[in-house]
Amino acid sequence: MSKEPNTVYIGRKPTMSYVLAVITSFNSSDTKEVTLKARGRAITTAVDVAEIVNNRFMKDLTVGEIAIGTEEIQQEEGGTRNVSTIEISLTRG
Amino acid sequence: MSKEPNTVYIGRKPTMSYVLAVITSFNSSDTKEVTLKARGRAITTAVDVAEIVNNRFMKDLTVGEIAIGTEEIQQEEGGTRNVSTIEISLTRG
Repeated sequence: MSKEPNTVYIGRKPTMSYVLAVITSFNSSDTKEVTLKARGRAITTAVDVAEIVNNRFMKDLTVGEIAIGTEEIQQEEGGTRNVSTIEISLTRG
Repeated sequence: MSKEPNTVYIGRKPTMSYVLAVITSFNSSDTKEVTLKARGRAITTAVDVAEIVNNRFMKDLTVGEIAIGTEEIQQEEGGTRNVSTIEISLTRG
């Protein structure tokens, strides 16, 4: 019953496994929007995923809002460090 | 006489050298807008630069449009491969 758009968290797996996750997410439900979220080095992968899904697999997609931000990460050895984040919204319409 | 906004190309140098380039670009001219451009692995660095300039050095900046894309790269061994790109616009206002 959630109205929240589907979210795919991008990590260290191969790019194509996230491409598949996005396509599955669009096809398994009636969703019109999937959001990619990534931080740190995975930001590049998130952009790759958005571009590959868009250009190769689902040409009816539109890249919507792209937001960047900063998160504070607790380090095991104490203290915090900042890591950049990105959110890329993909919409079908 | 160019009206084009200043552009900082992000590559493999340390993040802080691009942070400095952005701040210098804003301060050395009367520009209201600086665009960061990056591709491939440097995309993460571009997001880091935008966030660091914004949060630590120039709090009056706004992150404007963020655009992603794909470029075809000619490979030395022949053929092409695709690489993702990002453009992040920073405006002072």
